[in-house]
Amino acid sequence: MPPRSLIAAGALLAAVATAPAAWANATYSGALTEAEVLAAQKAWGEALVAIAREHETGGHAKAKALASTVLDKAYGYNLGPVLFKPTLTSAPQTFRTTKDGALAYFVGGDPQYPNDKGFALQGWRSVEIKNAAVQIHGDTASTTGNVIMTDKNGKTTIVDKSWTFKKTDDGAIRIVAHHSSLPYATTK
Amino acid sequence: MPPRSLIAAGALLAAVATAPAAWANATYSGALTEAEVLAAQKAWGEALVAIAREHETGGHAKAKALASTVLDKAYGYNLGPVLFKPTLTSAPQTFRTTKDGALAYFVGGDPQYPNDKGFALQGWRSVEIKNAAVQIHGDTASTTGNVIMTDKNGKTTIVDKSWTFKKTDDGAIRIVAHHSSLPYATTK
Amino acid sequence: MPPRSLIAAGALLAAVATAPAAWANATYSGALTEAEVLAAQKAWGEALVAIAREHETGGHAKAKALASTVLDKAYGYNLGPVLFKPTLTSAPQTFRTTKDGALAYFVGGDPQYPNDKGFALQGWRSVEIKNAAVQIHGDTASTTGNVIMTDKNGKTTIVDKSWTFKKTDDGAIRIVAHHSSLPYATTK
Amino acid sequence: MPPRSLIAAGALLAAVATAPAAWANATYSGALTEAEVLAAQKAWGEALVAIAREHETGGHAKAKALASTVLDKAYGYNLGPVLFKPTLTSAPQTFRTTKDGALAYFVGGDPQYPNDKGFALQGWRSVEIKNAAVQIHGDTASTTGNVIMTDKNGKTTIVDKSWTFKKTDDGAIRIVAHHSSLPYATTK
Repeated sequence: MPPRSLIAAGALLAAVATAPAAWANATYSGALTEAEVLAAQKAWGEALVAIAREHETGGHAKAKALASTVLDKAYGYNLGPVLFKPTLTSAPQTFRTTKDGALAYFVGGDPQYPNDKGFALQGWRSVEIKNAAVQIHGDTASTTGNVIMTDKNGKTTIVDKSWTFKKTDDGAIRIVAHHSSLPYATTK
Repeated sequence: MPPRSLIAAGALLAAVATAPAAWANATYSGALTEAEVLAAQKAWGEALVAIAREHETGGHAKAKALASTVLDKAYGYNLGPVLFKPTLTSAPQTFRTTKDGALAYFVGGDPQYPNDKGFALQGWRSVEIKNAAVQIHGDTASTTGNVIMTDKNGKTTIVDKSWTFKKTDDGAIRIVAHHSSLPYATTK
Repeated sequence: MPPRSLIAAGALLAAVATAPAAWANATYSGALTEAEVLAAQKAWGEALVAIAREHETGGHAKAKALASTVLDKAYGYNLGPVLFKPTLTSAPQTFRTTKDGALAYFVGGDPQYPNDKGFALQGWRSVEIKNAAVQIHGDTASTTGNVIMTDKNGKTTIVDKSWTFKKTDDGAIRIVAHHSSLPYATTK
Repeated sequence: MPPRSLIAAGALLAAVATAPAAWANATYSGALTEAEVLAAQKAWGEALVAIAREHETGGHAKAKALASTVLDKAYGYNLGPVLFKPTLTSAPQTFRTTKDGALAYFVGGDPQYPNDKGFALQGWRSVEIKNAAVQIHGDTASTTGNVIMTDKNGKTTIVDKSWTFKKTDDGAIRIVAHHSSLPYATTK
């Protein structure tokens, strides 16, 4: 039963130097930090690129398998419905509150979602995140800002994106809300 | 110092019927309920219509004053930056993390935001909210889904909208994140 | 991926009657309710009585096995250190932040905790809880008040007890803090 | 509307160096940190000593005024009932869920609480806090451990104490639960 987080364990041990050895001096933290939020955003971008590369080198089946793993690890579909509004979906399949719907969006090839072409399969090479602001509420945190994706031809796509992350009981950080949209400027 | 919330006070009093009268039998709840989230969404729609009507009957100054009051009461700009991505904004003024930026979006007329025409001034008559899913995290809750607005000519505008609400220490419920976008279907 | 909580599903379904069938209309709630807190308190009392009865009918080994199961289900030792200050412990083993320490307190017989006689083995027959107040913070809630335990001879023991409960990601409710003490009146 | 918390503002600004100047680059954090919890504990001890000294130099009225200010700033009585079980109270006035009850406990002299002698008026000179463990849940955090108070004659009093702190919307950190008890060892 090791504590999930040992914060400043050295300093704490010093403060309780005279305490009996039987004490379990430890700090448990279920709260997110800004560093964890920024790392989770970075990991999202790296996963998108990894799926694109896996598609190019291993084919669709391998890319789909990787995307499924990414969804299992990085999104909170195990917790309940995820508030996912992808960039390029439309009614009546706009919102992808189940893992199946998210997987179809990222890699396509699902007859249940015939309009999905596979957003992650577009040759992505790098992802840059520019937060307008970050809110840390406790075990959840929210962000909004721009995400700029560059593909293998050097073409960039910019989207407006809001995320909510949740730190789960086992210390993982999962996306529980994700609203992405094309800039209004490009749609006028 | 009255408690902010007396939940099932009758049942609780029965349970402690033999307790000394000096006890302060009360339950304080900082957590949101689904009913509170739905009520806050409904109130947002009613406020939009109220601003539109105020504009028609009282003119721009009165509509702006009402919008300012709505922002003070319904949004969390007093808490910190709000993650507000309005439907019709574009770079470099896409995100409205300050009250001034939100007010300009809703009623226009601010030279600092020259592209803002006043989203709330478009003759709105009714607002319908269709949640795809709702998440209650504690003192915050998030939603995503469609919002359908109808104007005085019976024309409807549908948007994809995600909100995060926060119950504050004084029991108010405020919008701390708001990402709205036109459906991809209408922008292709 | 069934949602863990379907709140007012009927009302919600009515509200979205025109929504496409593909939508996953569901509400996820990670927040505690007062009813859940009161039920968790009641379950604690019933578990204490169950361990006492198991001891009388099945012996120490069976009581210890049951107590171990209770600790696994009702306390948050899987999450990190639990803030447990039992009624009858003293330095240097006052605080039982590990499961081993809690198990020794409840059933005794552990040479690592030589002063523990087994608090749960004292013939308990009923437990009554009188909250002075309840606080719900979100996915945690705290209470303080009296707990009155009656044994098989009709003798009552009253303690002052504060608990903090946490709703975990899988919807379980666990004790993460538990401070119990004899009334000062009885110790003067 | 300055953000309440600018975390690693320098690093963040570097990360968004190419963002338009109109962006409000800021992080809002409602989550407690361990450092804030330890500072709030330290402040509690300093306030206890300050009240004792004020009593000695200024008399009861001034000590009462200071204690009232401390309760207003350091406890959450403005939020709702506080779960306060002081060390030396007994039935039927064990739990002090209102500010009046807490003030009577700390400085005495209130005919509504005839048994209260004024815990803070006992010549305290220093307070040492030894946490057994700390839990950070988000905007609340809980601790348990020993608090050792030394008076002007060098006599020490040790208590077992559990606290829950809450970060409020304005960034203040308040005690919302406080259970203190004499060690069982000293009461056997």
